[in-house]
Amino acid sequence: MPDIISNFKITGYGSYLPPNIQTSKELSEIIGKSEDWIINHTGVYERRISTIDVDQMGAIAAKEAIGNKPSPDLIINASGVPKQTLPDTSVFIQKELGFDGIASFSIHSTCLSFIVALNSAVSLLNESLYKRILIVSSDRGTRGRNFSEPESSSLLGDAAAAIYIEKTSNKTKGIIDYTMNTYPDGALLTQVKGGGTNLHPQDKETEKSDNLFSMNGPQVYRMARKKVYDLIKKDLKNNSLSVDDISLVVPHQASGMAVKAYSKYGGFKENKVVDIIDKTGNCVAASIPLALVLAYKENRIKTDDIIYLVGTGAGLSIASCIIKI
Amino acid sequence: MPDIISNFKITGYGSYLPPNIQTSKELSEIIGKSEDWIINHTGVYERRISTIDVDQMGAIAAKEAIGNKPSPDLIINASGVPKQTLPDTSVFIQKELGFDGIASFSIHSTCLSFIVALNSAVSLLNESLYKRILIVSSDRGTRGRNFSEPESSSLLGDAAAAIYIEKTSNKTKGIIDYTMNTYPDGALLTQVKGGGTNLHPQDKETEKSDNLFSMNGPQVYRMARKKVYDLIKKDLKNNSLSVDDISLVVPHQASGMAVKAYSKYGGFKENKVVDIIDKTGNCVAASIPLALVLAYKENRIKTDDIIYLVGTGAGLSIASCIIKI
Repeated sequence: MPDIISNFKITGYGSYLPPNIQTSKELSEIIGKSEDWIINHTGVYERRISTIDVDQMGAIAAKEAIGNKPSPDLIINASGVPKQTLPDTSVFIQKELGFDGIASFSIHSTCLSFIVALNSAVSLLNESLYKRILIVSSDRGTRGRNFSEPESSSLLGDAAAAIYIEKTSNKTKGIIDYTMNTYPDGALLTQVKGGGTNLHPQDKETEKSDNLFSMNGPQVYRMARKKVYDLIKKDLKNNSLSVDDISLVVPHQASGMAVKAYSKYGGFKENKVVDIIDKTGNCVAASIPLALVLAYKENRIKTDDIIYLVGTGAGLSIASCIIKI
Repeated sequence: MPDIISNFKITGYGSYLPPNIQTSKELSEIIGKSEDWIINHTGVYERRISTIDVDQMGAIAAKEAIGNKPSPDLIINASGVPKQTLPDTSVFIQKELGFDGIASFSIHSTCLSFIVALNSAVSLLNESLYKRILIVSSDRGTRGRNFSEPESSSLLGDAAAAIYIEKTSNKTKGIIDYTMNTYPDGALLTQVKGGGTNLHPQDKETEKSDNLFSMNGPQVYRMARKKVYDLIKKDLKNNSLSVDDISLVVPHQASGMAVKAYSKYGGFKENKVVDIIDKTGNCVAASIPLALVLAYKENRIKTDDIIYLVGTGAGLSIASCIIKI
């Protein structure tokens, strides 16, 4: 069995899926493509549309994750798009939770924010200043859909998920390995160009579409597939694991095709890959923790399982984290 | 001597101050207040205005920090405002540096981003997956000035700074203590309300000023002063340090009055508090690392010094980090 590099345990989880469903049939009328076109190109049959903002969504998931446990001593917001530019979203999540004085900040690496935040949080636990950390990913991607881009606007859905982690002296639980790589050659393939100093909302040259989500899906898929394939091979080899040693693969729900690639090319059995994109769409940074939380809720995760979190994000970045439960 | 909780050493530093200076006399004509009014209310005599964007500014500081050392294996962008919503700014900084495949992500807690990123980076070094981490703070606050708010628009200036840190087996170098607290009661005192899902640029109700920086300076100062005073007392007591044991205080350059409060109320000698705000303004997240880098460049920091990084940020958050050089 491979060594654990950083010990921790997950002691709480929660999720929020907005009640309002938009089917691909309903969306087809807005974007001028058929229901079949949407499903064939994205794998998304329906997605949720939130009427509450990311902080409230995140707080609902967080309350479920905290349950009756003590309040966390650190809150990390690990989302793709903020509530507003300043202050960072973690402050508003803490406000919704009714806490006061708890350290909070944001970690941002688009769709990989949760994996990056989890590894950072575990290393902070082991620095011993914090004992209990809440990680919240909450994204409302449907707010930034560009309906003149049928594929990317069909992909996005809204959701939030939260995980509560604690230090443990149990040396068999924790992170087995963690990897992240960023390839700026892909920086322009997935973008929201506005919202910062580049194309400031006050600039005359900033167009409405600059503030909306844009993705060259096919090119991202081509660039990412080989890199993720190599990452999986390296992760398994470096940790002396076979595909059968992995209890569950929890991938970013980038697209139906991207999720299916983990079994088609990655070598994992299809029933070991958590696939929720048909009902949720791509929920940006919330996709990975949502898939993890739903797997917990469906009793697909048990003690001693080896879970493989893996995905791609704007950047283009790839990341993976092998954890023993 | 207090214990070190996490070992690391600073092996590189760099800064970028845009060449273009805007004096308070020049600004007085734009905002309709006198030069004296500006200087009395903010302590800022002049600030820099960048014509290049945050990624290019950050890359200039980063190149100086890296020097002839190996490329870092992680780049953390620790800035207040991003270049754009997606992908995160670290990707663009890496692109400007000409690197490929290096892990990169952003940590955001407004003006405290650097302190939070430094502590997170050091804990990551000790997880042993990374050996060399580059932290870059780059802010172009003058892009978001609201000239109908004379005080906040007089405060902001542009700058970038970068620090290169490495693992060390020298047990006498590293973090002595680190603290952060966030008080969401102050969430609405310092804001850029737009740029996210709250007041999206495409929403009709979003006004131009929602995308600009707004701060209730006097109320922030009142709320922060007592909290920072208590933080300093706690930090010194918990680590059995006196004010004289601190070699240098490197505070966030929130305002002239806020920087002076560290000597006036905090008990530190005035010549031990790095005060650069008269020439740089409040450079958001770049203020603390810029003050640190300029202190290095002026030979105010030497081996075995105990440096006290401390400040306030939108949130309202307070944070401190005591490091032994």
